Amino acid sequence: MGNPVLVEVLRGGLVESRHRGAVMVLDADGAAVLALGDVARPVYPRSAVKPLQALPLLESGAAERYGFGDQEIALACASHGGEPAHVEVASRMLARAGLDAGALECGAHWPSHQPSSQALARSGGAPSALHNNCSGKHAGFVCVACAAGADHHGYVKAEHLVQREMRGALEGLTGAGLSADQCGIDGCSIPTWAVPLDKLAHAFARFGTGRGLGPERVKAAARIRAACAAQPYFVAGTGRFCTEIMKLFGARVLAKTGAEGVFCGALPEQGIGIALKCDDGASRASEVAMAAIIARFLPMSEEERHAFDRFLRPSLRNWNGIEVGGLRPTQAVIPGDRRETRDP
Amino acid sequence: MGNPVLVEVLRGGLVESRHRGAVMVLDADGAAVLALGDVARPVYPRSAVKPLQALPLLESGAAERYGFGDQEIALACASHGGEPAHVEVASRMLARAGLDAGALECGAHWPSHQPSSQALARSGGAPSALHNNCSGKHAGFVCVACAAGADHHGYVKAEHLVQREMRGALEGLTGAGLSADQCGIDGCSIPTWAVPLDKLAHAFARFGTGRGLGPERVKAAARIRAACAAQPYFVAGTGRFCTEIMKLFGARVLAKTGAEGVFCGALPEQGIGIALKCDDGASRASEVAMAAIIARFLPMSEEERHAFDRFLRPSLRNWNGIEVGGLRPTQAVIPGDRRETRDP
Repeated sequence: MGNPVLVEVLRGGLVESRHRGAVMVLDADGAAVLALGDVARPVYPRSAVKPLQALPLLESGAAERYGFGDQEIALACASHGGEPAHVEVASRMLARAGLDAGALECGAHWPSHQPSSQALARSGGAPSALHNNCSGKHAGFVCVACAAGADHHGYVKAEHLVQREMRGALEGLTGAGLSADQCGIDGCSIPTWAVPLDKLAHAFARFGTGRGLGPERVKAAARIRAACAAQPYFVAGTGRFCTEIMKLFGARVLAKTGAEGVFCGALPEQGIGIALKCDDGASRASEVAMAAIIARFLPMSEEERHAFDRFLRPSLRNWNGIEVGGLRPTQAVIPGDRRETRDP
Repeated sequence: MGNPVLVEVLRGGLVESRHRGAVMVLDADGAAVLALGDVARPVYPRSAVKPLQALPLLESGAAERYGFGDQEIALACASHGGEPAHVEVASRMLARAGLDAGALECGAHWPSHQPSSQALARSGGAPSALHNNCSGKHAGFVCVACAAGADHHGYVKAEHLVQREMRGALEGLTGAGLSADQCGIDGCSIPTWAVPLDKLAHAFARFGTGRGLGPERVKAAARIRAACAAQPYFVAGTGRFCTEIMKLFGARVLAKTGAEGVFCGALPEQGIGIALKCDDGASRASEVAMAAIIARFLPMSEEERHAFDRFLRPSLRNWNGIEVGGLRPTQAVIPGDRRETRDP
């Protein structure tokens, strides 16, 4: 019983750890392409829906009003590493609305990008809300409020205009009724509503293709996809999975990670949306599972397949740089994939 | 099928993530007290067997020769945070053998204790092998080699005297035959042999009670247990699970974490040994599962039970300090434990 094992972690030829989860792949008409595990159970999408949460920024005219380009729009979709360029763009977004970091209500944390964190410490500095991985999304939230002439204070609360807009966008795209008793508070203090994976995948199929959406939303979704494809560095950061995948495949893949093992995305040319969650919340596994789904459904050249292998079967190295093992998707995710090691 | 869910992660009243695993609790005669999941499958114990790996340091006379006290012996059992005091003791151990950090073959990494890592960056420094969480164990390894008059170079290799001693100690305690085809390389470059949880639990029951061991080993095990109980800060560090648990319960609990979701330990007064592994390798879950086993088998006062609750049901706070959820053991681990939240 339970969800299937999606990803295995190997060491010395044995499977050391195992990650279970559920995966849904749907087309824009809502037809199932692949369903693994319990895809009807509501899961908190966390940051994986940030590209959907950027829709009101475009649809309200706020992005145009403040002169946002690809970098700002990509950062509004980001779980970024708090690198200097990320901080700079977040700061610029707020400045366009006549505000600064003091307007952000996401809380502060050290940059997840280690060299940036160490450089900040070396300089005697301390992290601000601009270093929070969600600062671009929050800067976008503040701008949505300001462009609407609303008070931005308390924009993280469920009852604020901004979060009502977010909820509306999510309900519209997913077709799910979002209920208060299936709502948690996210790491950055905004509401996160639980949505089943099949409905999340449908939302991303619509978002990736525009199928079934109104003309305003079709345009906004295309703008957001184009911004992420043009500036993938601003969606995550140096060496990060989402950034590297979109650098490799451009507009052919939209990929967005979420905390606790969630991944969502779309393959616009194939007309499909993807939503998955590893039961245990591990990002290392959700990345490999997402890579496996991309490998299974995205046509790619030999060269691309070669470059992609380090995401599909990442190796693990120890502190001396010795390769001690690696991760790989199971046959549940990629049937017929060659298995090179024993299961004890 | 598969192992039972041991720990759940909650957010906003829903279960957001789930951790499965296996647990073995045995008495020193080898009688099962509790078995959950597949306890016969070999698992890499990783750092959870460091207290057993300290036996040759005592039994060889090296600890006595170099004048090691509780701090040095506890650090030899440690996965420490790389705090200044940890670094100092590791350095002192090597100095007693006339050596320095250059003798360590564990590789360097930034201190896992964040304030120490930031202070090191602020000072313009970079991490050395002394900051590696295994530096105390490795300093002990070097001392075992030196006290035996052997060349310490290459002490991490399976064929070196030191690792042959480690293998012998592990085989003696666990009663398991350690085979080369079930051996991986650990994060710190030494061999890690896969051992079933039932045999690991038996090893810790013997180590915790001395039952079934020769007089030299009884004495060495008691010395190691006493050192960890007296100096728990040197087994892990500020705020860390192993340290805090042993500060709370003293010699009544021996607890040692290992990478990839392993936990081992003993309750000497109850005469039992414990070994568990979370399938997915998550430390947050192995800690809560270990806490649940301690709560189930260790008699404690009301005051202790109250102080212990933050390990048994830790809360999760976001970047604004808002409590957004928490972890809890399932009824599989603590039958009859009150469940306060819904499972969607």
